[in-house]
Amino acid sequence: MLNDKVELAFRNVEEVVTREELENIINSGSGVGYYGTAPTGPFHIGYLVPLGKVSDLVRAGVKMKILLADIHAYMDDRKTDWGMLKVRTEYYFRCISLLLKDVDIEYCVGSDFQFQREYFEKLYRISALITVSRAQRAASMVTRMREPKVSELIYPIMQAIDCDALKVNIALGGIDQRHIYMLTREYFPLLGLNPVTCIFTPLIPSLRGPDVKMSASIPESNIQVYEPEESIRKKVLRAYCPMKEVKSSGLQYTNPIVAIASLALIPMLGSLRIERDPSKGGDIVYNDAGLLERDYVEGKIHPLDLKNSVANALIDFLKPVRDYFKTRHDLILEAYPEEVKKGLVPLP
Amino acid sequence: MLNDKVELAFRNVEEVVTREELENIINSGSGVGYYGTAPTGPFHIGYLVPLGKVSDLVRAGVKMKILLADIHAYMDDRKTDWGMLKVRTEYYFRCISLLLKDVDIEYCVGSDFQFQREYFEKLYRISALITVSRAQRAASMVTRMREPKVSELIYPIMQAIDCDALKVNIALGGIDQRHIYMLTREYFPLLGLNPVTCIFTPLIPSLRGPDVKMSASIPESNIQVYEPEESIRKKVLRAYCPMKEVKSSGLQYTNPIVAIASLALIPMLGSLRIERDPSKGGDIVYNDAGLLERDYVEGKIHPLDLKNSVANALIDFLKPVRDYFKTRHDLILEAYPEEVKKGLVPLP
Repeated sequence: MLNDKVELAFRNVEEVVTREELENIINSGSGVGYYGTAPTGPFHIGYLVPLGKVSDLVRAGVKMKILLADIHAYMDDRKTDWGMLKVRTEYYFRCISLLLKDVDIEYCVGSDFQFQREYFEKLYRISALITVSRAQRAASMVTRMREPKVSELIYPIMQAIDCDALKVNIALGGIDQRHIYMLTREYFPLLGLNPVTCIFTPLIPSLRGPDVKMSASIPESNIQVYEPEESIRKKVLRAYCPMKEVKSSGLQYTNPIVAIASLALIPMLGSLRIERDPSKGGDIVYNDAGLLERDYVEGKIHPLDLKNSVANALIDFLKPVRDYFKTRHDLILEAYPEEVKKGLVPLP
Repeated sequence: MLNDKVELAFRNVEEVVTREELENIINSGSGVGYYGTAPTGPFHIGYLVPLGKVSDLVRAGVKMKILLADIHAYMDDRKTDWGMLKVRTEYYFRCISLLLKDVDIEYCVGSDFQFQREYFEKLYRISALITVSRAQRAASMVTRMREPKVSELIYPIMQAIDCDALKVNIALGGIDQRHIYMLTREYFPLLGLNPVTCIFTPLIPSLRGPDVKMSASIPESNIQVYEPEESIRKKVLRAYCPMKEVKSSGLQYTNPIVAIASLALIPMLGSLRIERDPSKGGDIVYNDAGLLERDYVEGKIHPLDLKNSVANALIDFLKPVRDYFKTRHDLILEAYPEEVKKGLVPLP
């Protein structure tokens, strides 16, 4: 039987491996989890989904850590150059801690423990247990590279060792991390480590619709967490938001605005007010994403009302991040000099 | 123009990359070199070839280090289990230091520096520069595996970092290491490291002839450095030793007894006495392998005279190792319990 905490832990997830393990952990109150993120590209609202889940898990009684996986950002085909790791780690830390400012979190940085002797011993030892082809299968989903680097095969091995080094029994990640964590679960018995229960969150589709990928190089596809008010409003109002449509038959969100409401705003804010003209029935407050989605599919919420409400809520929710970065243009400029120059990263 | 030191450095080598670099190093007296060996299988006389070269290089004015590459022994498809690394490293150290007892050598152990932060930083950084397929090409010669492990792709990267950590400008290895060191030379410019000049020694063919590989699992194919006297004599007398034949057209040694004389005994002892009946011309002392090989090809040395002389010289040269291990059966038993049980490793 589900209780409130278990319900919180399970809501809005795409997959849990395994559901039984997670239920036991939540019920026993023994949960220690982590969400790891590699400081690569600029920080956009897609991150609100796992961060919302972090917040759910804390409320469900899990002690949560956030790993700023700096070395991983380099190992992932040098998405972040070695010399940029420090400043981007600082930037990610600021973004996350401003978004989770009322949540009790322990922050960890990869390079603080990924140079330790015990860590390397495990890295050496596991690397001799796993074949190149097996590691490549895990890496392929993450890297989508035809010609992966050796570092991209070390990458999933590090993810396994991280779980052990951080002493967690829950790992949280986007569903794009599934392959890598399945490999991680495979390793643990080989090394006598405890298995880690995995929670995968869905991904928010591009604002331009399901055929465009959400990408830092397509500014209209995403919203940065310190984006100026008017830019947020404009992007939301221009976004793809088909009437009565929420998900594809594969249960993937196809409507980015509904996804933002369901996966980011309701979990982070607790509820979302849909502002409607009194003639259309007036405002409704949803604290359950399922109800909002049901009403949207039934045509009870008009796309324009949803867009206006989501834009207002986002503008409001992101205010602390925007305010902070108004005084820290230097940090954005140092972390993404090229991207700012090309107009891919707005300055608030 | 070659001088004595340059001649010493170049003799009995299969290949030098590049010859010009080595000549400059020897002439300038700036040589610091290393021979790395991973403590895997039992120590046989095949090792006398690189150790003879170590001794040549020291006499040519090069400061030589010997790396007991313990982590490599594990990373090479776990040829040595993690728990066995220490005892096999001790065993290799004993074998080598007894064979090179009058040579001024610095001994290093891989795990003494392969857990250091600077080492790992280089490992992380280089691994992101090299593709899996490129590393696999380097590994394939060494591992001959259809399904290599991730560790086998890290292996050649470590070899590059070792050269830097040991601060050497010369790397010495068997010709079977060629692919791996070519990759290593490729890495150095990418990291702003100085290139390392490579010297590759030939391999002694199996005592059973060119169609059998010299292998620990075929006792008649090799001679252990602490093999009992009578066993050495028996193996040499039974060995493949075709009349007048030294090398194949590819310049690979096909005659293992000539190879032992040329590549191991003359370099290690300075000379080899061929004992002959006065009626056949009496004893001749060779201090130049080229002259011995020429005389053998011309039929001036009979295979049986060569075998008897090589057996006696080997028995004599290996006496200190044999004597030491007569009192250290424990070390052999601890390092190779299975091999001793199967009769693959003799106790002196």
